[in-house]
Amino acid sequence: MHRSNWSDFGKVGARPERIVWAVAEHEGQRSICPLGWKMNTSGSPVMMAISVAPQRFTHGLIAGSGEVVLAWPGEDLAEATLLCGTRSGRDLDKFKAAKLTARPGECVQAPLVAECVANLECRIDGQMTSGDHTLFVCEVLAVWLHERPGRLCLSIDRCAGYDVLLDKGGRLFGAVKA
Amino acid sequence: MHRSNWSDFGKVGARPERIVWAVAEHEGQRSICPLGWKMNTSGSPVMMAISVAPQRFTHGLIAGSGEVVLAWPGEDLAEATLLCGTRSGRDLDKFKAAKLTARPGECVQAPLVAECVANLECRIDGQMTSGDHTLFVCEVLAVWLHERPGRLCLSIDRCAGYDVLLDKGGRLFGAVKA
Repeated sequence: MHRSNWSDFGKVGARPERIVWAVAEHEGQRSICPLGWKMNTSGSPVMMAISVAPQRFTHGLIAGSGEVVLAWPGEDLAEATLLCGTRSGRDLDKFKAAKLTARPGECVQAPLVAECVANLECRIDGQMTSGDHTLFVCEVLAVWLHERPGRLCLSIDRCAGYDVLLDKGGRLFGAVKA
Repeated sequence: MHRSNWSDFGKVGARPERIVWAVAEHEGQRSICPLGWKMNTSGSPVMMAISVAPQRFTHGLIAGSGEVVLAWPGEDLAEATLLCGTRSGRDLDKFKAAKLTARPGECVQAPLVAECVANLECRIDGQMTSGDHTLFVCEVLAVWLHERPGRLCLSIDRCAGYDVLLDKGGRLFGAVKA
């Protein structure tokens, strides 16, 4: 064992990471922010947490509305994930730009994404600053599943066990071989 | 898309999940608590968060000491992960029981685990209750890497892209095919 640094940890300890889209709507504006930084935090009630940079457009929509939909992209949404992660919702409607279908939920204003493997309607239950990000704790109010859920889109390493979905601009997305 | 439940979400959206061990020491007692519920929360300073149930022995050691080591088990530590996750540190020293080597760190009292792929020495920077768990925010003070880091031990689904490491008592651990 030797003393190392965070960047080298990333090469051995950071992947695979499931990707989730934080989808939020507030005062007539909506956006989608792909995240790797998410975790379950409670079994009963069911809760998750996400960590979002304050400069993200979606951050303001989550904080302003007190709600978020956590939408899980499948293997067909790697390009959409890249687009939503590299453009700002200040400049474009990501649903239109990525040809996604917004569907109304039952518990929150933010839309569900019909093409995703799963959608979780959430209410923000608490938040705290953690360094350069805001940690939002989300209570899961409703769960929606796709009729034919495909494999999840993951941030991956170069390993034989994945089908590579996208390899562009330093991003490598894949799905575990079925 | 149809309204569903959390249990069914788990079948399509919960894995793969990297496993991390929360290692803590306080007032002469130490323990290891395997977790799937962890995420990065900040890039600068580097921070992570973990979610730990209050009834876990390790919870008291983290809260009491204000420190934790996040140790990342590799493919050779699936059995040790199962042991550490199914026994309580109140009853046994998990380092001895799982034949693990404790090594002193440089920043915190809690020991590093020599056999792990990586160890992160962390100071607890904040905490909040999230439902039935406590969310600890951890500032990463030091990073240690194994000289020959193997593949990470993951909580997995039954897919072709993994080598199964352990399949016992409802737990399925694996590593992505190299």
